[in-house]
Amino acid sequence: MTRYKLTLEYDGGPFVGWQRQDNGPSVQAALEAALLAFCGERITVSGAGRTDAGVHAAGQVAHCDIIKSTTADTVRDALNHHLRPAPISVLTATPVDDEFHARFSAVSRHYRYRILNRRAPPALQRGRVWWIARPLDAAAMASGARQLLGHHDFTSFRAAECQARSPMKTLDRLTVTRLGEEIELAVEARSFLHNQVRIIAGTLVRVGEGRWRPQDVGAALAACDRRAAGPTAPPHGLCLMHVGYP
Amino acid sequence: MTRYKLTLEYDGGPFVGWQRQDNGPSVQAALEAALLAFCGERITVSGAGRTDAGVHAAGQVAHCDIIKSTTADTVRDALNHHLRPAPISVLTATPVDDEFHARFSAVSRHYRYRILNRRAPPALQRGRVWWIARPLDAAAMASGARQLLGHHDFTSFRAAECQARSPMKTLDRLTVTRLGEEIELAVEARSFLHNQVRIIAGTLVRVGEGRWRPQDVGAALAACDRRAAGPTAPPHGLCLMHVGYP
Repeated sequence: MTRYKLTLEYDGGPFVGWQRQDNGPSVQAALEAALLAFCGERITVSGAGRTDAGVHAAGQVAHCDIIKSTTADTVRDALNHHLRPAPISVLTATPVDDEFHARFSAVSRHYRYRILNRRAPPALQRGRVWWIARPLDAAAMASGARQLLGHHDFTSFRAAECQARSPMKTLDRLTVTRLGEEIELAVEARSFLHNQVRIIAGTLVRVGEGRWRPQDVGAALAACDRRAAGPTAPPHGLCLMHVGYP
Repeated sequence: MTRYKLTLEYDGGPFVGWQRQDNGPSVQAALEAALLAFCGERITVSGAGRTDAGVHAAGQVAHCDIIKSTTADTVRDALNHHLRPAPISVLTATPVDDEFHARFSAVSRHYRYRILNRRAPPALQRGRVWWIARPLDAAAMASGARQLLGHHDFTSFRAAECQARSPMKTLDRLTVTRLGEEIELAVEARSFLHNQVRIIAGTLVRVGEGRWRPQDVGAALAACDRRAAGPTAPPHGLCLMHVGYP
Protein backbone atom coordinates (compact mmCIF):
# COMPACT_ATOMS: atom_id res chain seq x y z
CA MET A 1 0.00 0.00 0.00
CA THR A 2 1.24 3.45 -0.91
CA ARG A 3 -0.22 6.73 0.28
CA TYR A 4 -0.44 9.37 -2.44
CA LYS A 5 -0.73 13.11 -2.02
CA LEU A 6 -2.86 14.56 -4.82
CA THR A 7 -2.87 18.23 -5.83
CA LEU A 8 -6.15 19.17 -7.47
CA GLU A 9 -7.66 21.87 -9.62
CA TYR A 10 -11.42 22.05 -10.07
CA ASP A 11 -14.26 24.22 -11.22
CA GLY A 12 -16.65 24.11 -8.25
CA GLY A 13 -19.64 25.21 -10.36
CA PRO A 14 -21.24 21.81 -11.05
CA PHE A 15 -20.58 20.32 -7.59
CA VAL A 16 -22.39 20.34 -4.23
CA GLY A 17 -18.93 20.94 -2.77
CA TRP A 18 -15.86 18.89 -1.89
CA GLN A 19 -17.63 16.49 0.44
CA ARG A 20 -19.63 13.46 -0.60
CA GLN A 21 -23.35 14.18 -0.11
CA ASP A 22 -26.65 12.64 -1.06
CA ASN A 23 -28.00 15.70 -2.85
CA GLY A 24 -25.68 15.84 -5.87
CA PRO A 25 -22.23 15.32 -7.39
CA SER A 26 -19.25 16.13 -5.19
CA VAL A 27 -15.56 16.44 -5.99
CA GLN A 28 -14.72 13.73 -3.45
CA ALA A 29 -17.23 11.26 -4.97
CA ALA A 30 -15.92 11.97 -8.50
CA LEU A 31 -12.35 11.21 -7.34
CA GLU A 32 -13.46 8.06 -5.53
CA ALA A 33 -15.32 6.89 -8.66
CA ALA A 34 -12.15 7.48 -10.73
CA LEU A 35 -10.10 5.52 -8.15
CA LEU A 36 -12.60 2.66 -8.31
CA ALA A 37 -12.37 2.60 -12.11
CA PHE A 38 -8.55 2.65 -11.93
CA CYS A 39 -7.93 0.28 -8.99
CA GLY A 40 -11.08 -1.86 -8.94
CA GLU A 41 -11.67 -1.15 -5.26
CA ARG A 42 -13.38 1.42 -3.09
CA ILE A 43 -10.80 3.91 -1.80
CA THR A 44 -11.58 6.90 0.41
CA VAL A 45 -10.11 10.29 -0.51
CA SER A 46 -9.43 12.79 2.30
CA GLY A 47 -9.21 16.48 1.41
CA ALA A 48 -7.37 19.33 3.15
CA GLY A 49 -10.34 21.69 3.00
CA ARG A 50 -14.04 20.99 2.55
CA THR A 51 -14.79 23.61 -0.08
CA ASP A 52 -18.48 24.58 -0.31
CA ALA A 53 -20.76 24.21 -3.33
CA GLY A 54 -19.53 26.46 -6.13
CA VAL A 55 -16.10 27.17 -4.58
CA HIS A 56 -13.15 26.50 -6.91
CA ALA A 57 -9.70 25.10 -6.28
CA ALA A 58 -6.36 25.66 -8.01
CA GLY A 59 -4.39 23.78 -5.36
CA GLN A 60 -6.63 21.61 -3.17
CA VAL A 61 -4.71 18.72 -1.59
CA ALA A 62 -6.03 15.25 -0.84
CA HIS A 63 -4.59 11.86 0.04
CA CYS A 64 -5.56 8.26 -0.64
CA ASP A 65 -4.09 4.80 -0.11
CA ILE A 66 -3.52 2.62 -3.16
CA ILE A 67 -2.76 -1.10 -2.80
CA LYS A 68 -2.32 -1.75 -6.53
CA SER A 69 1.30 -1.61 -7.70
CA THR A 70 1.67 1.47 -9.89
CA THR A 71 3.65 4.68 -10.34
CA ALA A 72 2.87 8.27 -9.36
CA ASP A 73 2.66 9.35 -13.01
CA THR A 74 0.22 6.55 -13.75
CA VAL A 75 -1.94 7.52 -10.78
CA ARG A 76 -2.14 11.12 -12.05
CA ASP A 77 -2.81 10.20 -15.70
CA ALA A 78 -5.24 7.36 -14.96
CA LEU A 79 -7.29 9.49 -12.57
CA ASN A 80 -7.41 12.33 -15.11
CA HIS A 81 -8.57 9.85 -17.73
CA HIS A 82 -11.35 8.44 -15.56
CA LEU A 83 -12.39 11.87 -14.25
CA ARG A 84 -13.47 13.05 -17.71
CA PRO A 85 -15.63 14.94 -18.43
CA ALA A 86 -15.82 16.31 -14.87
CA PRO A 87 -13.92 19.62 -14.52
CA ILE A 88 -11.46 18.17 -12.02
CA SER A 89 -7.77 17.79 -12.80
CA VAL A 90 -5.10 15.94 -10.81
CA LEU A 91 -2.10 18.27 -11.15
CA THR A 92 0.34 16.04 -9.26
CA ALA A 93 0.36 12.68 -7.50
CA THR A 94 3.24 12.10 -5.09
CA PRO A 95 4.01 9.09 -2.86
CA VAL A 96 4.13 10.24 0.75
CA ASP A 97 4.82 8.80 4.16
CA ASP A 98 1.93 6.90 5.81
CA GLU A 99 1.89 9.62 8.48
CA PHE A 100 0.88 12.27 5.94
CA HIS A 101 -2.71 13.45 6.28
CA ALA A 102 -4.05 16.04 3.82
CA ARG A 103 -6.19 17.70 6.46
CA PHE A 104 -4.34 17.19 9.76
CA SER A 105 -0.79 17.68 8.44
CA ALA A 106 -1.65 21.00 6.75
CA VAL A 107 -0.09 24.08 8.33
CA SER A 108 -1.54 26.77 6.07
CA ARG A 109 -4.40 27.35 3.64
CA HIS A 110 -4.35 30.10 1.05
CA TYR A 111 -7.54 31.39 -0.55
CA ARG A 112 -8.19 34.04 -3.18
CA TYR A 113 -11.47 35.91 -3.52
CA ARG A 114 -12.02 37.71 -6.83
CA ILE A 115 -14.38 40.65 -7.36
CA LEU A 116 -15.05 42.06 -10.82
CA ASN A 117 -15.79 45.72 -10.18
CA ARG A 118 -17.11 47.31 -13.33
CA ARG A 119 -20.43 48.36 -14.82
CA ALA A 120 -20.55 45.59 -17.46
CA PRO A 121 -21.26 42.01 -16.32
CA PRO A 122 -18.59 39.32 -16.79
CA ALA A 123 -18.64 37.21 -19.97
CA LEU A 124 -15.23 35.47 -19.97
CA GLN A 125 -14.90 35.37 -16.15
CA ARG A 126 -18.49 34.40 -15.47
CA GLY A 127 -18.68 31.91 -12.61
CA ARG A 128 -15.17 32.87 -11.46
CA VAL A 129 -15.77 36.33 -9.95
CA TRP A 130 -18.29 38.18 -7.83
CA TRP A 131 -19.60 40.95 -10.07
CA ILE A 132 -20.19 44.28 -8.31
CA ALA A 133 -21.21 47.11 -10.64
CA ARG A 134 -20.92 50.07 -8.25
CA PRO A 135 -17.37 51.38 -7.70
CA LEU A 136 -15.57 50.00 -4.64
CA ASP A 137 -12.84 51.78 -2.67
CA ALA A 138 -10.12 49.12 -2.51
CA ALA A 139 -7.89 51.23 -0.25
CA ALA A 140 -10.69 51.49 2.35
CA MET A 141 -11.26 47.74 2.07
CA ALA A 142 -7.54 47.14 2.67
CA SER A 143 -7.69 49.39 5.73
CA GLY A 144 -10.67 47.44 7.11
CA ALA A 145 -8.91 44.17 6.33
CA ARG A 146 -5.94 45.03 8.56
CA GLN A 147 -8.21 44.97 11.61
CA LEU A 148 -8.83 41.26 11.12
CA LEU A 149 -5.17 40.23 11.08
CA GLY A 150 -3.85 38.16 13.96
CA HIS A 151 -5.38 35.92 16.62
CA HIS A 152 -9.04 36.65 17.37
CA ASP A 153 -12.41 35.20 18.27
CA PHE A 154 -13.99 35.07 14.80
CA THR A 155 -17.53 34.25 15.96
CA SER A 156 -18.85 37.17 13.86
CA PHE A 157 -17.28 35.63 10.76
CA ARG A 158 -18.55 32.10 11.17
CA ALA A 159 -21.53 30.34 9.60
CA ALA A 160 -24.27 29.15 11.99
CA GLU A 161 -23.62 25.55 10.89
CA CYS A 162 -19.85 25.75 11.60
CA GLN A 163 -18.68 22.63 13.44
CA ALA A 164 -15.34 23.92 14.73
CA ARG A 165 -14.96 23.54 18.50
CA SER A 166 -13.38 26.95 18.97
CA PRO A 167 -14.00 30.27 17.18
CA MET A 168 -10.38 31.31 17.85
CA LYS A 169 -8.34 31.58 14.63
CA THR A 170 -5.18 33.37 13.52
CA LEU A 171 -5.42 35.26 10.25
CA ASP A 172 -1.84 35.44 8.95
CA ARG A 173 -2.52 37.36 5.76
CA LEU A 174 -5.38 39.39 4.33
CA THR A 175 -4.55 41.74 1.47
CA VAL A 176 -6.87 43.64 -0.84
CA THR A 177 -5.38 44.57 -4.22
CA ARG A 178 -6.95 46.31 -7.18
CA LEU A 179 -5.79 45.02 -10.56
CA GLY A 180 -7.62 47.15 -13.10
CA GLU A 181 -11.28 46.18 -13.00
CA GLU A 182 -10.63 43.39 -10.53
CA ILE A 183 -10.23 43.47 -6.76
CA GLU A 184 -8.45 40.47 -5.31
CA LEU A 185 -8.43 39.35 -1.68
CA ALA A 186 -5.55 37.07 -0.68
CA VAL A 187 -6.18 35.29 2.61
CA GLU A 188 -3.98 32.91 4.56
CA ALA A 189 -4.38 31.08 7.85
CA ARG A 190 -3.54 27.73 9.38
CA SER A 191 -7.26 26.92 9.20
CA PHE A 192 -10.57 28.70 8.76
CA LEU A 193 -14.06 28.61 10.21
CA HIS A 194 -16.96 27.67 7.95
CA ASN A 195 -17.62 30.53 5.46
CA GLN A 196 -15.00 32.70 7.18
CA VAL A 197 -13.40 33.94 3.95
CA ARG A 198 -16.75 34.60 2.29
CA ILE A 199 -18.07 36.56 5.30
CA ILE A 200 -14.82 38.55 5.37
CA ALA A 201 -15.30 39.33 1.65
CA GLY A 202 -18.95 40.32 2.16
CA THR A 203 -17.99 42.56 5.09
CA LEU A 204 -15.12 44.29 3.29
CA VAL A 205 -17.41 45.01 0.33
CA ARG A 206 -19.61 47.01 2.73
CA VAL A 207 -16.53 49.12 3.47
CA GLY A 208 -15.68 49.35 -0.26
CA GLU A 209 -19.18 50.67 -0.96
CA GLY A 210 -18.75 53.37 1.69
CA ARG A 211 -21.63 52.00 3.78
CA TRP A 212 -19.19 51.07 6.55
CA ARG A 213 -16.04 52.83 7.76
CA PRO A 214 -12.87 50.71 7.92
CA GLN A 215 -12.97 50.75 11.74
CA ASP A 216 -16.47 49.24 11.69
CA VAL A 217 -14.81 45.96 10.69
CA GLY A 218 -12.95 45.89 14.01
CA ALA A 219 -16.21 46.64 15.83
CA ALA A 220 -17.94 43.75 14.01
CA LEU A 221 -15.11 41.44 15.07
CA ALA A 222 -15.31 42.59 18.68
CA ALA A 223 -19.09 42.01 18.78
CA CYS A 224 -18.62 38.19 18.54
CA ASP A 225 -22.01 37.96 16.85
CA ARG A 226 -22.62 36.75 13.30
CA ARG A 227 -25.25 39.47 12.81
CA ALA A 228 -22.61 42.15 13.41
CA ALA A 229 -20.62 41.24 10.25
CA GLY A 230 -21.61 41.65 6.60
CA PRO A 231 -23.30 39.13 4.31
CA THR A 232 -21.69 35.92 3.07
CA ALA A 233 -20.17 36.63 -0.38
CA PRO A 234 -21.18 34.24 -3.20
CA PRO A 235 -19.12 31.03 -3.52
CA HIS A 236 -18.01 31.38 -7.14
CA GLY A 237 -15.58 34.23 -6.38
CA LEU A 238 -13.62 31.99 -4.01
CA CYS A 239 -10.73 29.69 -4.92
CA LEU A 240 -8.55 27.49 -2.67
CA MET A 241 -5.12 28.30 -4.11
CA HIS A 242 -2.66 26.36 -2.00
CA VAL A 243 -2.30 24.18 1.09
CA GLY A 244 1.00 24.29 2.93
CA TYR A 245 2.74 21.39 4.72
CA PRO A 246 5.84 21.37 6.94
CA MET B 1 -29.70 58.96 -35.38
CA THR B 2 -26.54 58.39 -33.41
CA ARG B 3 -23.80 55.95 -34.29
CA TYR B 4 -22.44 54.03 -31.28
CA LYS B 5 -19.12 52.26 -30.98
CA LEU B 6 -19.52 49.17 -28.79
CA THR B 7 -16.63 47.37 -27.08
CA LEU B 8 -17.51 43.75 -26.44
CA GLU B 9 -16.37 40.79 -24.36
CA TYR B 10 -17.69 37.33 -25.14
CA ASP B 11 -17.16 33.64 -24.56
CA GLY B 12 -17.12 32.22 -28.10
CA GLY B 13 -17.91 28.70 -26.90
CA PRO B 14 -21.68 28.60 -27.50
CA PHE B 15 -21.62 30.56 -30.78
CA VAL B 16 -21.15 29.67 -34.46
CA GLY B 17 -18.93 32.76 -34.56
CA TRP B 18 -19.36 36.50 -34.80
CA GLN B 19 -21.32 36.48 -38.03
CA ARG B 20 -25.05 35.81 -38.36
CA GLN B 21 -25.53 32.34 -39.87
CA ASP B 22 -28.38 29.90 -40.39
CA ASN B 23 -26.74 27.02 -38.53
CA GLY B 24 -26.80 28.37 -34.97
CA PRO B 25 -26.52 31.30 -32.56
CA SER B 26 -24.05 34.04 -33.46
CA VAL B 27 -22.74 36.99 -31.44
CA GLN B 28 -23.99 39.40 -34.08
CA ALA B 29 -27.54 37.96 -34.02
CA ALA B 30 -27.60 38.07 -30.19
CA LEU B 31 -26.64 41.76 -30.26
CA GLU B 32 -29.20 42.52 -32.93
CA ALA B 33 -31.90 40.75 -30.92
CA ALA B 34 -30.94 42.84 -27.87
CA LEU B 35 -31.10 46.02 -29.97
CA LEU B 36 -34.54 45.02 -31.26
CA ALA B 37 -35.75 44.46 -27.69
CA PHE B 38 -34.30 47.81 -26.60
CA CYS B 39 -35.22 50.00 -29.60
CA GLY B 40 -38.18 48.19 -31.13
CA GLU B 41 -36.57 48.15 -34.57
CA ARG B 42 -34.19 45.97 -36.57
CA ILE B 43 -30.68 47.42 -36.39
CA THR B 44 -27.61 45.91 -38.05
CA VAL B 45 -24.41 45.56 -36.01
CA SER B 46 -21.07 45.65 -37.86
CA GLY B 47 -18.04 44.08 -36.18
CA ALA B 48 -14.33 44.83 -36.59
CA GLY B 49 -13.37 41.18 -36.91
CA ARG B 50 -15.42 38.14 -37.85
CA THR B 51 -14.26 35.79 -35.13
CA ASP B 52 -14.78 32.09 -35.90
CA ALA B 53 -16.89 29.62 -33.94
CA GLY B 54 -15.38 29.13 -30.48
CA VAL B 55 -13.05 32.16 -30.64
CA HIS B 56 -13.35 34.54 -27.68
CA ALA B 57 -13.16 38.32 -27.43
CA ALA B 58 -12.06 40.62 -24.63
CA GLY B 59 -12.14 43.74 -26.84
CA GLN B 60 -14.13 43.17 -30.03
CA VAL B 61 -15.48 46.43 -31.48
CA ALA B 62 -18.74 46.92 -33.35
CA HIS B 63 -20.92 49.83 -34.39
CA CYS B 64 -24.64 50.39 -34.85
CA ASP B 65 -26.98 53.30 -35.59
CA ILE B 66 -29.68 54.09 -33.05
CA ILE B 67 -32.57 56.42 -33.90
CA LYS B 68 -34.19 56.33 -30.47
CA SER B 69 -33.18 59.19 -28.20
CA THR B 70 -31.06 57.72 -25.40
CA THR B 71 -27.69 57.98 -23.67
CA ALA B 72 -24.49 55.95 -24.06
CA ASP B 73 -24.80 54.54 -20.53
CA THR B 74 -28.37 53.45 -21.24
CA VAL B 75 -27.32 51.76 -24.49
CA ARG B 76 -24.65 49.77 -22.60
CA ASP B 77 -26.87 48.83 -19.65
CA ALA B 78 -29.99 48.06 -21.74
CA LEU B 79 -28.06 45.83 -24.16
CA ASN B 80 -26.43 43.98 -21.25
CA HIS B 81 -29.87 43.49 -19.73
CA HIS B 82 -31.39 42.11 -22.94
CA LEU B 83 -28.32 39.97 -23.75
CA ARG B 84 -28.79 37.81 -20.66
CA PRO B 85 -28.13 34.93 -20.32
CA ALA B 86 -25.82 34.92 -23.39
CA PRO B 87 -22.13 35.24 -22.36
CA ILE B 88 -21.74 38.56 -24.19
CA SER B 89 -21.03 41.80 -22.35
CA VAL B 90 -21.05 45.35 -23.70
CA LEU B 91 -18.07 46.91 -21.91
CA THR B 92 -18.54 50.41 -23.33
CA ALA B 93 -20.90 52.24 -25.67
CA THR B 94 -19.60 55.53 -27.07
CA PRO B 95 -21.26 57.96 -29.50
CA VAL B 96 -19.01 58.34 -32.56
CA ASP B 97 -18.94 60.28 -35.80
CA ASP B 98 -21.08 58.91 -38.67
CA GLU B 99 -17.85 58.26 -40.57
CA PHE B 100 -16.69 55.70 -37.99
CA HIS B 101 -16.84 52.10 -39.21
CA ALA B 102 -15.83 49.31 -36.82
CA ARG B 103 -14.25 47.26 -39.61
CA PHE B 104 -12.98 49.79 -42.15
CA SER B 105 -11.73 52.42 -39.69
CA ALA B 106 -9.68 49.87 -37.71
CA VAL B 107 -5.90 50.24 -38.02
CA SER B 108 -4.80 47.32 -35.82
CA ARG B 109 -6.10 44.07 -34.39
CA HIS B 110 -4.52 42.39 -31.38
CA TYR B 111 -5.02 38.71 -30.67
CA ARG B 112 -3.79 36.43 -27.90
CA TYR B 113 -3.42 32.68 -28.27
CA ARG B 114 -3.10 30.70 -25.00
CA ILE B 115 -1.54 27.26 -24.66
CA LEU B 116 -1.67 25.34 -21.38
CA ASN B 117 1.49 23.26 -21.45
CA ARG B 118 1.39 20.74 -18.63
CA ARG B 119 0.66 17.08 -18.13
CA ALA B 120 -2.67 17.61 -16.35
CA PRO B 121 -5.68 18.76 -18.37
CA PRO B 122 -7.26 22.16 -17.63
CA ALA B 123 -10.17 22.35 -15.19
CA LEU B 124 -10.49 26.08 -14.43
CA GLN B 125 -9.22 27.24 -17.86
CA ARG B 126 -11.11 24.65 -19.86
CA GLY B 127 -12.42 26.16 -23.09
CA ARG B 128 -9.96 29.08 -22.81
CA VAL B 129 -6.65 27.38 -23.65
CA TRP B 130 -5.22 24.80 -26.03
CA TRP B 131 -3.99 21.99 -23.79
CA ILE B 132 -0.70 20.41 -24.91
CA ALA B 133 0.66 17.81 -22.50
CA ARG B 134 4.15 17.26 -23.97
CA PRO B 135 6.71 19.94 -23.04
CA LEU B 136 7.14 22.76 -25.56
CA ASP B 137 10.32 24.80 -26.10
CA ALA B 138 8.97 28.37 -25.94
CA ALA B 139 12.35 29.90 -26.85
CA ALA B 140 12.45 27.86 -30.10
CA MET B 141 8.86 28.94 -30.82
CA ALA B 142 9.84 32.59 -30.31
CA SER B 143 12.75 32.11 -32.69
CA GLY B 144 10.45 30.63 -35.33
CA ALA B 145 7.95 33.43 -34.75
CA ARG B 146 10.48 36.13 -35.65
CA GLN B 147 10.62 34.82 -39.22
CA LEU B 148 6.99 35.76 -39.77
CA LEU B 149 7.35 39.41 -38.74
CA GLY B 150 6.95 42.06 -41.43
CA HIS B 151 5.31 42.25 -44.86
CA HIS B 152 4.90 38.85 -46.58
CA ASP B 153 2.73 36.71 -48.82
CA PHE B 154 0.94 34.66 -46.14
CA THR B 155 -0.65 32.13 -48.54
CA SER B 156 0.76 29.27 -46.43
CA PHE B 157 -1.04 30.68 -43.36
CA ARG B 158 -4.46 31.18 -44.92
CA ALA B 159 -7.57 28.99 -44.80
CA ALA B 160 -8.80 27.61 -48.14
CA GLU B 161 -12.08 29.50 -47.69
CA CYS B 162 -10.34 32.87 -47.08
CA GLN B 163 -12.08 35.63 -49.04
CA ALA B 164 -9.35 38.28 -48.90
CA ARG B 165 -8.31 39.56 -52.32
CA SER B 166 -4.61 39.57 -51.51
CA PRO B 167 -2.51 37.23 -49.36
CA MET B 168 -0.10 40.09 -48.57
CA LYS B 169 -0.19 41.08 -44.90
CA THR B 170 2.12 42.85 -42.48
CA LEU B 171 2.66 41.17 -39.13
CA ASP B 172 3.62 43.94 -36.72
CA ARG B 173 4.04 41.84 -33.58
CA LEU B 174 4.33 38.16 -32.77
CA THR B 175 5.77 37.28 -29.39
CA VAL B 176 5.87 33.94 -27.59
CA THR B 177 6.11 34.13 -23.81
CA ARG B 178 6.12 31.39 -21.21
CA LEU B 179 4.29 32.26 -17.99
CA GLY B 180 4.66 29.20 -15.79
CA GLU B 181 2.57 26.42 -17.29
CA GLU B 182 1.17 28.72 -19.93
CA ILE B 183 2.60 29.82 -23.27
CA GLU B 184 1.07 32.97 -24.67
CA LEU B 185 1.28 34.24 -28.25
CA ALA B 186 0.62 37.97 -28.70
CA VAL B 187 -0.11 38.86 -32.32
CA GLU B 188 -0.76 42.23 -33.92
CA ALA B 189 -1.44 43.36 -37.49
CA ARG B 190 -3.60 45.88 -39.33
CA SER B 191 -5.68 42.91 -40.54
CA PHE B 192 -5.42 39.14 -40.82
CA LEU B 193 -6.25 36.42 -43.33
CA HIS B 194 -8.84 33.81 -42.36
CA ASN B 195 -7.37 31.48 -39.70
CA GLN B 196 -3.99 33.20 -39.94
CA VAL B 197 -3.37 33.41 -36.19
CA ARG B 198 -4.52 29.82 -35.60
CA ILE B 199 -2.30 28.46 -38.39
CA ILE B 200 0.63 30.45 -36.99
CA ALA B 201 -0.08 28.91 -33.56
CA GLY B 202 -0.31 25.40 -35.00
CA THR B 203 2.94 25.88 -36.90
CA LEU B 204 4.87 27.29 -33.93
CA VAL B 205 3.73 24.35 -31.80
CA ARG B 206 5.50 22.05 -34.31
CA VAL B 207 8.68 24.00 -33.52
CA GLY B 208 7.98 23.86 -29.79
CA GLU B 209 7.64 20.08 -29.99
CA GLY B 210 11.03 19.85 -31.72
CA ARG B 211 9.50 18.33 -34.86
CA TRP B 212 10.46 21.49 -36.83
CA ARG B 213 13.52 23.72 -36.53
CA PRO B 214 12.81 27.46 -36.11
CA GLN B 215 14.05 28.16 -39.65
CA ASP B 216 11.48 25.73 -41.07
CA VAL B 217 8.87 28.40 -40.31
CA GLY B 218 10.55 30.74 -42.79
CA ALA B 219 10.63 27.94 -45.37
CA ALA B 220 6.91 27.28 -44.85
CA LEU B 221 6.21 30.99 -45.40
CA ALA B 222 8.33 31.06 -48.57
CA ALA B 223 6.53 28.02 -49.99
CA CYS B 224 3.26 30.01 -50.44
CA ASP B 225 1.31 26.79 -50.04
CA ARG B 226 -1.12 26.03 -47.20
CA ARG B 227 0.18 22.45 -47.03
CA ALA B 228 3.65 23.74 -46.14
CA ALA B 229 2.53 25.22 -42.79
CA GLY B 230 1.36 23.42 -39.66
CA PRO B 231 -2.20 22.55 -38.64
CA THR B 232 -4.85 25.08 -37.64
CA ALA B 233 -4.82 25.38 -33.84
CA PRO B 234 -8.19 24.94 -32.08
CA PRO B 235 -10.38 28.06 -31.80
CA HIS B 236 -10.87 28.11 -28.03
CA GLY B 237 -7.25 29.18 -27.34
CA LEU B 238 -7.77 32.37 -29.34
CA CYS B 239 -9.05 35.71 -28.04
CA LEU B 240 -9.49 39.04 -29.86
CA MET B 241 -8.01 41.40 -27.27
CA HIS B 242 -8.16 44.85 -28.82
CA VAL B 243 -8.97 46.74 -32.01
CA GLY B 244 -7.08 49.98 -32.64
CA TYR B 245 -8.44 53.13 -34.33
CA PRO B 246 -6.65 56.32 -35.40
